[in-house]
Amino acid sequence: MKRVLNFYPGPAAIPLEAIEEAGDELVNWNNTGMSILEISHRSKQYEAVHNETKDLLRKLLQIPDDFRILMLQGGASLQFAMIPMNLLKDHETAGYIITGNFSRNAYKAANVVSKVFTAASTEKDGKFYRLPETNEIETDENAVYYHLTSNNTITGTQWKVFPDFGSVPVIADMSSDILSRKIDFKPFGLIYAGAQKNLGPAGVTVVIIKDDLVERSRGDLPDILSYKTLVSKNSLFNTPSCFSIYMMNKVLKWVKKSGGIDFIELQNRKKVELVYGLIDKYPDFFQSKIEKESRSFMNVTLRLPDEKLEESFISEAEKQGIIGLKGHRSVGGIRISMYNANGINEVNTLAQFMEDFHHKNG
Amino acid sequence: MKRVLNFYPGPAAIPLEAIEEAGDELVNWNNTGMSILEISHRSKQYEAVHNETKDLLRKLLQIPDDFRILMLQGGASLQFAMIPMNLLKDHETAGYIITGNFSRNAYKAANVVSKVFTAASTEKDGKFYRLPETNEIETDENAVYYHLTSNNTITGTQWKVFPDFGSVPVIADMSSDILSRKIDFKPFGLIYAGAQKNLGPAGVTVVIIKDDLVERSRGDLPDILSYKTLVSKNSLFNTPSCFSIYMMNKVLKWVKKSGGIDFIELQNRKKVELVYGLIDKYPDFFQSKIEKESRSFMNVTLRLPDEKLEESFISEAEKQGIIGLKGHRSVGGIRISMYNANGINEVNTLAQFMEDFHHKNG
Repeated sequence: MKRVLNFYPGPAAIPLEAIEEAGDELVNWNNTGMSILEISHRSKQYEAVHNETKDLLRKLLQIPDDFRILMLQGGASLQFAMIPMNLLKDHETAGYIITGNFSRNAYKAANVVSKVFTAASTEKDGKFYRLPETNEIETDENAVYYHLTSNNTITGTQWKVFPDFGSVPVIADMSSDILSRKIDFKPFGLIYAGAQKNLGPAGVTVVIIKDDLVERSRGDLPDILSYKTLVSKNSLFNTPSCFSIYMMNKVLKWVKKSGGIDFIELQNRKKVELVYGLIDKYPDFFQSKIEKESRSFMNVTLRLPDEKLEESFISEAEKQGIIGLKGHRSVGGIRISMYNANGINEVNTLAQFMEDFHHKNG
Repeated sequence: MKRVLNFYPGPAAIPLEAIEEAGDELVNWNNTGMSILEISHRSKQYEAVHNETKDLLRKLLQIPDDFRILMLQGGASLQFAMIPMNLLKDHETAGYIITGNFSRNAYKAANVVSKVFTAASTEKDGKFYRLPETNEIETDENAVYYHLTSNNTITGTQWKVFPDFGSVPVIADMSSDILSRKIDFKPFGLIYAGAQKNLGPAGVTVVIIKDDLVERSRGDLPDILSYKTLVSKNSLFNTPSCFSIYMMNKVLKWVKKSGGIDFIELQNRKKVELVYGLIDKYPDFFQSKIEKESRSFMNVTLRLPDEKLEESFISEAEKQGIIGLKGHRSVGGIRISMYNANGINEVNTLAQFMEDFHHKNG
């Protein structure tokens, strides 16, 4: 069967050559006579992959020296809990900027752990169409950190310039846009991301944490939830999700070979120009409710004039081998998720399909 | 390169046919035109694998209807924390039976969450050579549960008959012997296991929890740590470790095809007879400190007359393609981990190697 064009929101497309390599060597990895699935996480061979993966990520994202890199399990959702558990001492607080379902979930989890506050919310009638202006963000002199979601997968908004709170660090869930563009680490104390969009398959979560936040982390936590322990053990306190990390290693090598973050960022810019170009060309047909400045470069959400057309758009696309276009159940419509592994050619094919669909139905 | 005989303690050997199948279909899974690594966890195709995996486990282990099956991330270590977080209300307590490093870690994590007590410990001069007699276990009328580790991977001991505390449930970490033998669920309220010994690759942790314990779980936890939420969402509250679950599915099918738990249990019995047979035949050369009744059927630990011989044993074995025999760094010596995927032929080869090694050096 022909390879589909995969626009799933995550788990999502992975570079074909990374998958092919993994398939070819699954039975006998690296001439060890066994599979990467079977090798001890304490073996020299696995540890080399583990550490190389961190090095690749550090170099690609130019992560400053005073940040540690963790590769954990549990997804971004576990970080929703671990961040306040580690960073908030009794009666301390933090500000949460609510711009979509996931940032709301992060707030909800934190609020169980400690009393945190809503620094801003762009919710209107249960929907999120924009990001807040800087002057809409409420600060509190007691805030230990501010939390935001850099890209909102469900609604299709993305921060282009991050707020900076000076000595109070920003903590960002970058699950759905990490490695899609350069990051200036200055405002940040902690960045985390589930791998299953731009980094690799599900099963591993990257946490990039500044030394001073590791130091201020609470000591009275079970080891598996303690940044202090996990950093001191190099994410090998217990058995990591070895295969997911191994796949992330291959994806990072593919990014490096492709031209690094500069190439990726440029390609992503070209891809969104194609798709938002059509939205701007046929605004009554491809209807976007998202403010232009807030448009996501990863997830384009749109509605067609009626639901029947939307169903037909999705099923016509599927017939042509273009899949994953259904909007999230909470918002409906169409969602086009274009992560790094979707190259300009794939997006060109999609744009042509959109043009044709408009021609027939517009 | 020839396939090695893999006696790693975990991650460990996986049935070759499961790996071969996965390798063959890694690029195009199930005629979807994409990899299992790329497919949405909300897709019908993935959900079918997810639910079939639970069904296979339920049938193979004859899990009673009033137990739910979860497939989570974070390893047994995260369960060390989640169990007391969910099951102990303020000021409630539970008894921990300490028989090795992992049960001590479980106790340590629980003690951070609530005040728990040591119901028994077989530690002597920092070592663990046996399991406690029933009359050594201290009970407390306030205990909400008793926790034990069914098989101690590092020291090589294994419970053959589990204690029963009547209406107070036993909670067992079965990471290193789940699916190696039948389980009578009567004394248990919760059984959990990291997959990376008998179930599949690292990255997924099975939790088998009785309905009444789900009901009594605390409601004031972040969702990702709440059994109530995870059960109600069928382990799909967030993105699971899809590939690890998919591999577990293949391993469970292999167990079923091989003859199910009866065949596996019989084979494991034959395997240990071969290895413990040599220990009993040459007790001055293959020295075991473990009480006979406590001997593990999964991890055989032994010492040779001196450390030089031990090194030579390990390196000679490696030359013959037999790997993973080094004892845990905390105890030294030799450890032979014989999980389900090591068949009687592999263990026969190992036993022959041991016989030869004794002949040359004994």
